[in-house]
Amino acid sequence: VKRPNYLAGLELDRASSLRSNPEKLEEAWSRPDTRVVPVFELKHPVTRREDGAVALTVLSPRDVDDFRGSRVLLGTSQGVAWFAVDLAGGEEPPGALGLREIAPLVSQSEGALLAYSFGILSWHRRHRFCGVCGSASRSTEGGHLRVCASESCGEQHFPRTDPAVIMLVEDGGRVLLGRQAAWREKVYSTLAGFVEPGESLEEAVRREVLEETGVEIEDVQYHSSQPWPFPSSLMLGFTARAKSRDIRVQLDELEDARWFTREQLRAGESVSLPSTISIARRLIEDWLKG
Amino acid sequence: VKRPNYLAGLELDRASSLRSNPEKLEEAWSRPDTRVVPVFELKHPVTRREDGAVALTVLSPRDVDDFRGSRVLLGTSQGVAWFAVDLAGGEEPPGALGLREIAPLVSQSEGALLAYSFGILSWHRRHRFCGVCGSASRSTEGGHLRVCASESCGEQHFPRTDPAVIMLVEDGGRVLLGRQAAWREKVYSTLAGFVEPGESLEEAVRREVLEETGVEIEDVQYHSSQPWPFPSSLMLGFTARAKSRDIRVQLDELEDARWFTREQLRAGESVSLPSTISIARRLIEDWLKG
Repeated sequence: VKRPNYLAGLELDRASSLRSNPEKLEEAWSRPDTRVVPVFELKHPVTRREDGAVALTVLSPRDVDDFRGSRVLLGTSQGVAWFAVDLAGGEEPPGALGLREIAPLVSQSEGALLAYSFGILSWHRRHRFCGVCGSASRSTEGGHLRVCASESCGEQHFPRTDPAVIMLVEDGGRVLLGRQAAWREKVYSTLAGFVEPGESLEEAVRREVLEETGVEIEDVQYHSSQPWPFPSSLMLGFTARAKSRDIRVQLDELEDARWFTREQLRAGESVSLPSTISIARRLIEDWLKG
Repeated sequence: VKRPNYLAGLELDRASSLRSNPEKLEEAWSRPDTRVVPVFELKHPVTRREDGAVALTVLSPRDVDDFRGSRVLLGTSQGVAWFAVDLAGGEEPPGALGLREIAPLVSQSEGALLAYSFGILSWHRRHRFCGVCGSASRSTEGGHLRVCASESCGEQHFPRTDPAVIMLVEDGGRVLLGRQAAWREKVYSTLAGFVEPGESLEEAVRREVLEETGVEIEDVQYHSSQPWPFPSSLMLGFTARAKSRDIRVQLDELEDARWFTREQLRAGESVSLPSTISIARRLIEDWLKG
């Protein structure tokens, strides 16, 4: 079994049957041992332990009962319910950090817990109104469904997750990486893009590589997947083999794209690798080993 | 190379650079040789040829210029632009059929063209208003983006695609299939469900099988993918091996779930297979051969 990617590996039971039981949900919220993951503006206030290590801050419902932000049932663990709460409207709590900063410092399952919390709370923030009729919608099913409050509409809206493909394209001993102008200096990463309506994953992989670099590919193989809640992506990792070599960079997407050898990537002089928590890094590291 | 699943296999160039060029888009719409795929209430009016065969109805812009429904640039083929147009507000055209009925009767690429058209037009129908502020949004980028019309908001909204996992679980010579109460008599199919926020595909596969049937699985392997615009799913097909055998059906999701042998599926007496166009059917047929 492969090690899961960062941000996957949740250890909670998602307890979907509890979502549709309002009495049990309220009872869970009334218990002092219920655990609450606070989120503020897509940051989480970490706790620094005495030895300098970073831990998640986990609260009790009574600590956050003043907040009017979204509340979502994450699931249960050993009979204890876990919720995520959006601290919207309050002041930024001390120690608030983004998920990219926290994830490398905490355990696999803690990173997954935060990814889940950020992903579903982001969805609530962006879907307060019904797309069909424009009326306000309200959260229900423990925060896993929004329903239009207009009686004449009443449309149901489920959490949104945006599938994106990300692919390592190789040509014998070289790999095709690109960089965006906004990235840290020297960082090159695997190509990526959102899946469009009416498209298979494999078609999206071929289209994105061709659009962004002009390179044609074959042998498109699934590698692994990763939740990527910035704010709501699901990264679907692939490998592929180049059929053509010439690069023609699409400049509105990328600043540059190049072929790199293993030696160049390992030396790291002209190139830096993407974040350790990204599936891009995993794809590149698996290729470096292979 | 595997045969693509039904509804994938588009032969157009999606021509994303044309989307951001309003002058070229208008010029394309003014040309009589531009091709238009009409869609009415998630049906397409097919043309019956003299020999009884079914063909898509492809119009010219002048044929649909009276309609105020959404218009989407699908792409180009040999220099000719293709659009999909929502005939909303008009009368149901003769020969209007759903995608499930049409797809088995037309070519792979025609099925893909309709899947793409239905998927993106469904998105427009369900996203007329901004989820962030409730104002009306307007279509731009050739129909591939909606922008909130409120100046104080201006949020961008991209087409929505909902990733769902669908999995064939096997135990030696038997396969785990379930049926929903609403399905045609005797139809059993592979289990499936939507990917949730903060979840990898592999985790979603394990969770859904456990939730719906109580069966634990291992060796989760990606098979293939399929656009499934009913109205906006992307099916992500997997195979897996059972670690446990006892079935405990979650009755709010399924009416029944059972283990079937190849002989039972081939005989077809107590069980019918799902639609020929579904990835579920493909997963089952590949297993029957294997």
